[in-house]
Amino acid sequence: MSPTACVILIGNEILSGRTQDKNLAWIAKELNEIGVRLIETRVIPDITDTIIETVNACRPNFTYIFTTGGIGPTHDDITSDAIAKAFDVKLERNKEAEAILQRHYGGEKLNAARLKMAYIPAGASLILNPVSAAPGFRIENVFVMAGVPSIMQAMFAEFRHELKGGAKMLSKTLSAYVTEGVIAERLSTIQDQCPAVEIGSYPFMRQHRLGTSLVARSTDAAALNAAHHKIKDLLLTLTQDVVEEDWAN
Amino acid sequence: MSPTACVILIGNEILSGRTQDKNLAWIAKELNEIGVRLIETRVIPDITDTIIETVNACRPNFTYIFTTGGIGPTHDDITSDAIAKAFDVKLERNKEAEAILQRHYGGEKLNAARLKMAYIPAGASLILNPVSAAPGFRIENVFVMAGVPSIMQAMFAEFRHELKGGAKMLSKTLSAYVTEGVIAERLSTIQDQCPAVEIGSYPFMRQHRLGTSLVARSTDAAALNAAHHKIKDLLLTLTQDVVEEDWAN
Repeated sequence: MSPTACVILIGNEILSGRTQDKNLAWIAKELNEIGVRLIETRVIPDITDTIIETVNACRPNFTYIFTTGGIGPTHDDITSDAIAKAFDVKLERNKEAEAILQRHYGGEKLNAARLKMAYIPAGASLILNPVSAAPGFRIENVFVMAGVPSIMQAMFAEFRHELKGGAKMLSKTLSAYVTEGVIAERLSTIQDQCPAVEIGSYPFMRQHRLGTSLVARSTDAAALNAAHHKIKDLLLTLTQDVVEEDWAN
Repeated sequence: MSPTACVILIGNEILSGRTQDKNLAWIAKELNEIGVRLIETRVIPDITDTIIETVNACRPNFTYIFTTGGIGPTHDDITSDAIAKAFDVKLERNKEAEAILQRHYGGEKLNAARLKMAYIPAGASLILNPVSAAPGFRIENVFVMAGVPSIMQAMFAEFRHELKGGAKMLSKTLSAYVTEGVIAERLSTIQDQCPAVEIGSYPFMRQHRLGTSLVARSTDAAALNAAHHKIKDLLLTLTQDVVEEDWAN
């Protein structure tokens, strides 16, 4: 079995519709590259009890948990405190984090609010932040990152080499203006013939035309290729206009 | 208390990073308009047991549950079956759904795969689909919709009037190139002074410049305005370049 992951996006702004989340798709692609299977994602509000319950419900079930959001200096940044409570450890002033903030802000600019970002759950190790200094942290299998995409991505790059992946998931996609109902039966037969490949069928609508993207995914390149050719042959019986996408996710 | 909601996005394509979800933000904005508070979202794969567990874990905790994805004709469309199992009812051929598909496809084109879309959990009521005919359905407090955004949106419009909302959440946003650490302490004071308003602080980075969006949300227009002016005054002590956004979410 490949290692597994759960992403927890923390922030009222995503649930209110104000912010279109971009972190999930980015993390999903990275995990795919590494060979970690993202099994679930939750989006939750900035409420301490909800964060505690969600983290504790998820962490025994996955190899890795990644959270984004809520580790800044303002009153609504409560993630670090909630994670400490989830692990039943103290939220304590971390000397290494304080030194980083000291270097970044200098003496006077390191006010009480910014110093809050040096408070890290006891026993956690820091995740460095090359963009804006204030670190994230890792405690057991939980990686706690910032919500701003560029900062989150820089943090992820810091610990990426620590993640143990399994076989990389390979994929091939074919798209055509063919509706699902026309191909469903034959596609099901192909799926039965190719048990090592996961075949997904995703309808889309572009300029009022319904089409379908067929995505074959597998860790076995030969099995993937075999399924890909069967799907391509199926589509070519219906249209010459089949678009092949590169090895995507 | 306002009615609450949970959105469950069902689909491997979102967890693999292939598809950037657009349904969550859209549903979130609609619910906000109606006065329903979206409290949580989960993204889960096309696995029957996972769908059953997730739906049953969530449905007692929220006024409404909305699912997207997995109700088409292909082998990986397993949502309807999983929902029937979650409610411990039969998945049965629904006469009304069959008549709709019959009208849409005519005789011969209504093949076995398409007929699969007429199978609906016993006791559910249909959600009409003016875009591509195949209906979604509602069972108790669970609304099951398609994953294609244009179809999902058309389905949502069909039952929107049935949703009972509470007081509408109003909001005002102010953005400036001011970092959170500079304003955090005074912002916290404003939050304390305005308990009827939820003040969120969201850092952003544009062209390598860090800024902050401050979002005040409340169902009380007067309280919202008071908080808004306090936040504006705070920002104006630091910069003249404060961008005011309209009543958004």
